[in-house]
Amino acid sequence: MATFDQYLADHRAEHLEQLKRFLRFQSISTLPDHKDEVLQCANYLVEHLRALGFEHAELISTERHPVVYADWLHAPGKPTVLIYGHYDVQPVDPLHLWHTPPFEPAVRDNQIYARGSSDDKGQVFMHLKAVEALLQTTGTLPVNVKFCIEGEEEIGSPHLPAVLESRSDQFDADVVVISDTTILGPGRPAVCYGLRGLAALEIAVQGAKSDLHSGLYGGIVQNAIHALVELLASLRDPSGRVLVKGFYDAVEPVSADETAALLSLADDETQLATSLGVPELFGEAGYTALERNWVRPTLEINGIYGGFQGEGTKTVIPNEAHAKITCRLVPNQDPREIQQTVESHLHAECPPGVTLSVSLQDTGMPYLTPFHHPAIQWAAHAYAKAYGVPAAFTRMGGSIPIVEVFERVIHAPVVLMGFGLNDENFHAPNEHFSLENFDKGTRTLCHYWNGLEEALDKES
Amino acid sequence: MATFDQYLADHRAEHLEQLKRFLRFQSISTLPDHKDEVLQCANYLVEHLRALGFEHAELISTERHPVVYADWLHAPGKPTVLIYGHYDVQPVDPLHLWHTPPFEPAVRDNQIYARGSSDDKGQVFMHLKAVEALLQTTGTLPVNVKFCIEGEEEIGSPHLPAVLESRSDQFDADVVVISDTTILGPGRPAVCYGLRGLAALEIAVQGAKSDLHSGLYGGIVQNAIHALVELLASLRDPSGRVLVKGFYDAVEPVSADETAALLSLADDETQLATSLGVPELFGEAGYTALERNWVRPTLEINGIYGGFQGEGTKTVIPNEAHAKITCRLVPNQDPREIQQTVESHLHAECPPGVTLSVSLQDTGMPYLTPFHHPAIQWAAHAYAKAYGVPAAFTRMGGSIPIVEVFERVIHAPVVLMGFGLNDENFHAPNEHFSLENFDKGTRTLCHYWNGLEEALDKES
Repeated sequence: MATFDQYLADHRAEHLEQLKRFLRFQSISTLPDHKDEVLQCANYLVEHLRALGFEHAELISTERHPVVYADWLHAPGKPTVLIYGHYDVQPVDPLHLWHTPPFEPAVRDNQIYARGSSDDKGQVFMHLKAVEALLQTTGTLPVNVKFCIEGEEEIGSPHLPAVLESRSDQFDADVVVISDTTILGPGRPAVCYGLRGLAALEIAVQGAKSDLHSGLYGGIVQNAIHALVELLASLRDPSGRVLVKGFYDAVEPVSADETAALLSLADDETQLATSLGVPELFGEAGYTALERNWVRPTLEINGIYGGFQGEGTKTVIPNEAHAKITCRLVPNQDPREIQQTVESHLHAECPPGVTLSVSLQDTGMPYLTPFHHPAIQWAAHAYAKAYGVPAAFTRMGGSIPIVEVFERVIHAPVVLMGFGLNDENFHAPNEHFSLENFDKGTRTLCHYWNGLEEALDKES
Repeated sequence: MATFDQYLADHRAEHLEQLKRFLRFQSISTLPDHKDEVLQCANYLVEHLRALGFEHAELISTERHPVVYADWLHAPGKPTVLIYGHYDVQPVDPLHLWHTPPFEPAVRDNQIYARGSSDDKGQVFMHLKAVEALLQTTGTLPVNVKFCIEGEEEIGSPHLPAVLESRSDQFDADVVVISDTTILGPGRPAVCYGLRGLAALEIAVQGAKSDLHSGLYGGIVQNAIHALVELLASLRDPSGRVLVKGFYDAVEPVSADETAALLSLADDETQLATSLGVPELFGEAGYTALERNWVRPTLEINGIYGGFQGEGTKTVIPNEAHAKITCRLVPNQDPREIQQTVESHLHAECPPGVTLSVSLQDTGMPYLTPFHHPAIQWAAHAYAKAYGVPAAFTRMGGSIPIVEVFERVIHAPVVLMGFGLNDENFHAPNEHFSLENFDKGTRTLCHYWNGLEEALDKES
């Protein structure tokens, strides 16, 4: 009987073609006119899971995009794992910056380029191929496996919490595994034990009842863009520290041990600046780049628009201006409280002559799990087996808001076994995924399932 | 023989249809893909002028849009007047705010709605109908008339100065008349003796080499939008006073007499705020709204964009952000010096972590002519004859950069006989033009030509 390793090597070309098929679906969850493509992508997953031998494969409808469920429960007495991922992707603009089209997967230098290749279709697909390899080579799986692959992660998972809550028996598991994070670098595997949370807001500033001629009204009415930039400038100091009163109040201090571990992982900041193409790194004084990204909250304007954007000059006083903001939050910060704190600041600082409206958008709780849990520790061993080097324990600057919901509803530890790399342009043009990590990662997952029961037994 | 008044009344319906035809040309000079429409509009004018009996009608080509020239020079010994106007129009976005399409002229409540109806096609067309009425009723004109109607006013008249300089004999005149300004209100005619100048700049802020995920890089790199809003916020104080060092240095003091005249014309500011739909007027402390608009320079952001503008949330750190700025300038301020002053300020205030590029765009000189000149004084009489009330002498907040060029190249006084109203949305959706002013204004022009020789003779 072939090993899973041999099986994966033998079927590498076929699996790559299947992955490309999966990546071609334009499953952009935030754009209403892509709804049908999102659904087609979900149907593709259902069919693929059935073909692997999974049962109860179904689409669980929501008000917007469905959740894909399927299970294989033929290992009585063994642990049950729930694998979570998402098949929806981010928008692709600015499209002109892509070297190859975002939904025409292309392999260059052992990287696969496509929107969703790293975040998260590529990583979801590794799970399909890991259970396929084990089933095809042993006729069984060493654990009971449930899949929960949603289509709304990039819009903040608005419906999955209710799905999980209303079907807690169906989704019950001993361990939740998610592959939607990054390792430290090429050949530097890492198990992630903490994530930042998220709080999003949208701002609209309204001035006169229509755009006005800047000659005829310049000096007489407030310009909505000026009001907006003054308001936005009040949110951070020149170092990026957030000036909203109370923003940092709930931030939990980081222990000396953890700070030491963090500092040991510090990147070469000059090299990082060069690789990002910036003249210098940027952020709150007194913290390393890794600390600012992992254990400090941030506030970013994600988009701004108002007035004339075309070629040439238009001498107008714009009457409306808009901005989108997201905050990344750390453990013990409550996203709804942060939204309200920011909203209060905006209303208090709003310049005269305009009216302000603030709309509270997505939120996600921050998450932290103790890294001594055996499900976490065994993940490090599985990485080490596949990569041949020890794995680090990390936190992440990003958010997977649903992680906190799994912990709360399923009452199981969440293990973040990611295989992405930080420079894979997840939410940017030219997103790509390392096929080396695709290969080693799929084997990491096989090792993880094979030894998980024993690892959990040691705990009890 | 009919009077011009009777002729205009008899042909009103026919002239209105001709005006609609003129307004249907989508002659947006700033948009490259409208180049052909701009040319068609110019050809329409040439044909119309020939049909009126004008000679030497021609298109004078430039690198972009042509100048329309035509003359009628059969009044030997009489003054020669040069009538300047423009057949190009502003862009129309945001299109969804128009109640009827911008290039499908519609008459409602004795207003004609269309892009260019007030600025400036409607006013150009009045000149065509004034000379037509005089020619058709008397067989001649009381002055020699030259038309110079350009297609690049809304992009800052980049080529007309060179055309005038290279053909100064062709364009030579004793008086230049321009109808591209406003009167004080319905039934409140005004001769304008001063205009503000213009200085435009574009700003681009560049951060990392691509957009970055706000989770993975939030806290590590500068966000181009934050850098831009901080930079833009540094340009004005909360009252709108410009904080750029040296910005006000060259501003000429306004005499007590002129200030008194200005204050006598002051609008009811509460009523003005209500009509504009703003909670309150806005601007530099210590000046009335009219002073801020006529005799004080201003700086306005006309457009801003960066990052994600679509529906929903995109957790991105945008790597570029852009803004467009124009300053309105008053007599003795030099637009190129102001551009350099603002550029220096921007470079000095640019936040860390990004690179800034500033591009200097259009400029226009401010203009002021003594209001005791007989060509100006006679204009007030002509208004009074047509409107039945005395005309005021005003300055304007807007810019017609070419005015200063006419004065410099043609060495003739420039008379600004406008017929627009301030609330006619020149550069905004739902631009419209009062047909009452179209009617009275065309008669004002007939009176002006009829008495101009005598008025000028009195001077000499």
